[in-house]
Amino acid sequence: MVKINESMLIDFYEFTMANGYFEHGFKDRIVYFDLFFRTIPSRGGYAVMAGLKSVIDYIENLSFDDEDVAYLRKRKLFDDDFLTFLSTFRFTGDIYALEEGTVIFPGEPILTVRATAIEAQLIETFLLVAINHQSLIATKASRLKHAAGNRVLIEMGARRAHGVSSANLGARAAYIGGADFTSNTYADRHLSIPAAGTMAHSWIQLFDSELDAFRAYAKTYPSSTTFLVDTYDTLKSGVPNAIKVIKEDLKPKGINNVAIRIDSGDLTYLAKCARKMLDEAGLPECKIVASNALDEHLIKALIDQGAPIDVFGVGERLITAKSDPVFGGVYKLVATEDDGRVVPKIKISDNPAKITTPHFKKLYRIYDKDTGKAQADLLTVHDETIDTTKPLTIFNPEHTWQTTTYENYTVKNLLTPIFNHGKRVYPDKTVEEVRAHCKAQLDALWPEMKRFEHPHKYYVDLSQKLWDIKMDLINTHRNRIATQNQ
Amino acid sequence: MVKINESMLIDFYEFTMANGYFEHGFKDRIVYFDLFFRTIPSRGGYAVMAGLKSVIDYIENLSFDDEDVAYLRKRKLFDDDFLTFLSTFRFTGDIYALEEGTVIFPGEPILTVRATAIEAQLIETFLLVAINHQSLIATKASRLKHAAGNRVLIEMGARRAHGVSSANLGARAAYIGGADFTSNTYADRHLSIPAAGTMAHSWIQLFDSELDAFRAYAKTYPSSTTFLVDTYDTLKSGVPNAIKVIKEDLKPKGINNVAIRIDSGDLTYLAKCARKMLDEAGLPECKIVASNALDEHLIKALIDQGAPIDVFGVGERLITAKSDPVFGGVYKLVATEDDGRVVPKIKISDNPAKITTPHFKKLYRIYDKDTGKAQADLLTVHDETIDTTKPLTIFNPEHTWQTTTYENYTVKNLLTPIFNHGKRVYPDKTVEEVRAHCKAQLDALWPEMKRFEHPHKYYVDLSQKLWDIKMDLINTHRNRIATQNQ
Repeated sequence: MVKINESMLIDFYEFTMANGYFEHGFKDRIVYFDLFFRTIPSRGGYAVMAGLKSVIDYIENLSFDDEDVAYLRKRKLFDDDFLTFLSTFRFTGDIYALEEGTVIFPGEPILTVRATAIEAQLIETFLLVAINHQSLIATKASRLKHAAGNRVLIEMGARRAHGVSSANLGARAAYIGGADFTSNTYADRHLSIPAAGTMAHSWIQLFDSELDAFRAYAKTYPSSTTFLVDTYDTLKSGVPNAIKVIKEDLKPKGINNVAIRIDSGDLTYLAKCARKMLDEAGLPECKIVASNALDEHLIKALIDQGAPIDVFGVGERLITAKSDPVFGGVYKLVATEDDGRVVPKIKISDNPAKITTPHFKKLYRIYDKDTGKAQADLLTVHDETIDTTKPLTIFNPEHTWQTTTYENYTVKNLLTPIFNHGKRVYPDKTVEEVRAHCKAQLDALWPEMKRFEHPHKYYVDLSQKLWDIKMDLINTHRNRIATQNQ
Repeated sequence: MVKINESMLIDFYEFTMANGYFEHGFKDRIVYFDLFFRTIPSRGGYAVMAGLKSVIDYIENLSFDDEDVAYLRKRKLFDDDFLTFLSTFRFTGDIYALEEGTVIFPGEPILTVRATAIEAQLIETFLLVAINHQSLIATKASRLKHAAGNRVLIEMGARRAHGVSSANLGARAAYIGGADFTSNTYADRHLSIPAAGTMAHSWIQLFDSELDAFRAYAKTYPSSTTFLVDTYDTLKSGVPNAIKVIKEDLKPKGINNVAIRIDSGDLTYLAKCARKMLDEAGLPECKIVASNALDEHLIKALIDQGAPIDVFGVGERLITAKSDPVFGGVYKLVATEDDGRVVPKIKISDNPAKITTPHFKKLYRIYDKDTGKAQADLLTVHDETIDTTKPLTIFNPEHTWQTTTYENYTVKNLLTPIFNHGKRVYPDKTVEEVRAHCKAQLDALWPEMKRFEHPHKYYVDLSQKLWDIKMDLINTHRNRIATQNQ
C-alpha cells in the first residue's frame, strides 16, 4: 500500500490566493465557481462526464496535517492565522454536479461550487484533474465502443498509462464509456471493473515450442483459452498450432469457449485467413481477438473491410486518449454573494472563446417527447423554471436571430446536489449504474452526433434573462476600460 | 491520505501466466526480461529515461495481502499452492537499469530483470507504467527546455494531467528533463521539486476592480509579484494597472522582482507591446511570463519572432506530452537459464520492427575522447568487454556493410545494478542529482540530435557475437516453421 497525500495536489497559487483572501477580508465571502470545458476532444459531437466519484472521495478526505502546515510555514509566505485556519480546514460548501456518465457539451457547467472563496479556490486543481482525466477517457471509450458496435471491447492500456491513477481510474472511466473488460487487476479488485486476460509472448517463448506452450495453457485454463498466435508466424505456426490444440485437447472435452489473438501484422488480412483456416478445421466457434495500436478509426476501417474480428483489445490509444489527450476543463468564478444576494461575475479575455457565462445557473436538457432524443441544452439563471405546458423558444447565442421552438418536449434539470454545507447528500452509485446511465445518455443522442467526421453540433443556449445579464456585464467592463483610458 | 494498492496494478494475464509457470515446472526457472522502446516520441532524436525511483519503491513494497489473495481465489482460476506462494511473495531477483536522466535510444535495454519466471512476469505492468510515463514526460520537458534556452520553464499542467500520479510524478519527470519549477504543491512538499505560482483570474474578479486586486496582491506578496494582466483587456487595462501598482506601491520600497503574465491572445504581439509599455514606464526589470497552450514548436516560434518573453509556463502540452502521448516501452523475454548457462530467446513477429534482440546483454556508450560527445551505443553479450586501447569497429545492424571505426574513444557500461537477489544495491539519488545527470547527458549529444525536424539518427549497434546469435535464432525458428509445414 502506498499513501498519497491528495490534499497537497493543489497548484501553489491557490494557497497564495487563499492566504490573500484570508488577509483581505474574503475569508467568509461566498463565491460560485463553474467547472466547464470549451472544446470536445477529437472533434467529436459530445463528451461524457466522469470523475465525480473521485471528487466526492477527495472532498470527504480533504484536510491538512501538521507536516503539510509545517511545509507551508517554511515557505515564509503565509500568515500564521491562515496556517492555523488550514490546520482544521474542512470543506463546508455546496457542490452541484452532473451525474457520472452524463453526456456533456462545451460551455455548460459540469459542476458548480458554492463555498467561501478560500474553500472554492483550494479544491480547484483536484476537481479539474479528476474530471478532466476521467471525462477524457470515458469520452474516448464511448467512441471506440460506437465503432466496435456489438463486438467486445477490452481496455488493455495499463502499461502505457500516465502513471498509476491513469491506469486504474482510466480503466474505470473506459468501462463507464463502454469498454466491456479491462486487463488491469487493480480495477477489478478495487473498482469492480471485470478484468480479463490471455497470454503474452513470454509464455510461448518459455516453452520448448509454441505447440507445447498452447497445450500447457489449454490444460491449465480449459474453460476459456485464447491463444496468442503471432510469436513466430501467425498463419504458418500460430493458427495451425492453435487449431491442433483445440481439436485434440479441448474439443474432445466439449469445450467451445476458445479464441485466438492476433497482435501484429495486417489485422484484416490475417483475421480473414485465420477465420478461413478455423472454419475449414471445423471450428466456427473459435473467436478472433485483435489488438495492436487500435483506435476508433482503425476499428471502423477493419469492420468496413469485413475483418472477421469478434473482440477488440485497445491499449495505448484509449488509456492516453492519444488522438487528443487533453480534456480542457476549466474552473471559473461566475458569481459572489452580497448579503445573500447572488452577484454575477464575468471574465472577458482577449480570446472571445475564453469569455465566461456568468451567474449561478441551472442546466436544462430538452428532450423530444416522442423520440426521447435530446434536442438542446438550455442554461438559465438559478431561479428560472421552465413551464413545459407552453412552447419553449430558444435562440443561438452566437447568432441570436436563429431560434427554435419546442412544443412536444420535456426538460430535465441536470445539476444534482452532491454536497450541502459540506455534507454529502448524493448516494453511492455502483459503476454498473453509472455505466447504464451513460448508455442511456448515449442512446438519447441522435446518430448524427456520434459520427466521427463533422458530427452534428448540439446547441447549448442561454435563456433571455441569462443572456441579458451576460451582455450587461460585458458592456459594463468595456465602459470601465474605456473610461479608465480617457 | 489515500492508500493505493500498487501491488495489484498487474495485468490479469500476468497472474494467469504466473500460475501457469507454477503448475508447469517453471517456478524456479531463471529468466531475463529486457524493458526497451521502439520509437522516439514526436520524431525526436533521443529520449530521456525516468521512472527508476518509482520502480525501486514498488519492488521494495511488492507483496500481496490476505484480501488480495482472497480476491484471486474468488476468480476460481488459480492453484491453491500458487495462492499460498503469493501470500509470502517478495521479489528476490536482480535488476539492472540505466540511471534516471540517461539519454536513451530505441532497441536498447533501459532495464533488465533476471529473476524466476513468476517474479519477472508479475512486475511487468508496473515497470512499464512507471518508465513509460515518466520517460515520456522527461523527454518532452527536455525538448521544451531546449526550445526555451536560458529562459525559465515552469511546468503548470496539474489540472490537465491524467490523474493524480500523472500530475505528481509528471512534475518530477518534467523537472528531471529540464523544467525549472512546477505549479504543483505536492511535488514540492513530497518530491522536492520547487513550486512557484502567481494568481488566477478569480483573484482579480473577486475584487471591485483589477487595480484593487493588483494592489492587494502586491501588499501581501511584495517580494515576488506576478500580475495576471488578461482578465479584462491586456493592453488597455492589465498592463497599465500593473505598471501603476509597481511604480506606486513596489518601486518606492526598492522592490524589483516583478513580472506580468499574459495568458491569452497573440503572445508575440502582446509581449512586444507590453515590453514597450513597461520600458517606457521605466520598468525594464519587470519580466514577462507567457502561458496558454505552449509547446516546444510554439516557444521556438515566439523566440524566433523576437517575443520578449522571460518565462514560459507550459501546461497541458507538457503534462500529457500532447504531441505524442505514448511512450511505447515493452518488456520482452530475452533469455532463460539452464543449469546456470544463459540461453538466448527471441520473438520473431510478422512486423520486422517487433523482432527482439535476444540474450542477457551489456549496453556500452561510446564517447569521443576529445569532445566528450556520445558517438554511438553498442549492445554486446553480457560477457563481452571492450579493449579501448584498440580501435573499435561497429556496423549498422540494418545495413551491415556500413561500418564505423573509433580510435580515440572511451566507453561507459550503462546498465547499473539496482537489485541483487532482491536486495537493493543502488543508492538514493536526489532529484537534483538526477536532473544534473540528465543535463550532462543532453550536453554530451551533438546539437544535430536535438533538432525537432529530422534530427540526426544515433546508432545502436550490435557486437559481432550478439549479431551472430540473433541471426542463428532467426534461422532456427524459420527452419522449424518450414519443417512443421512440410
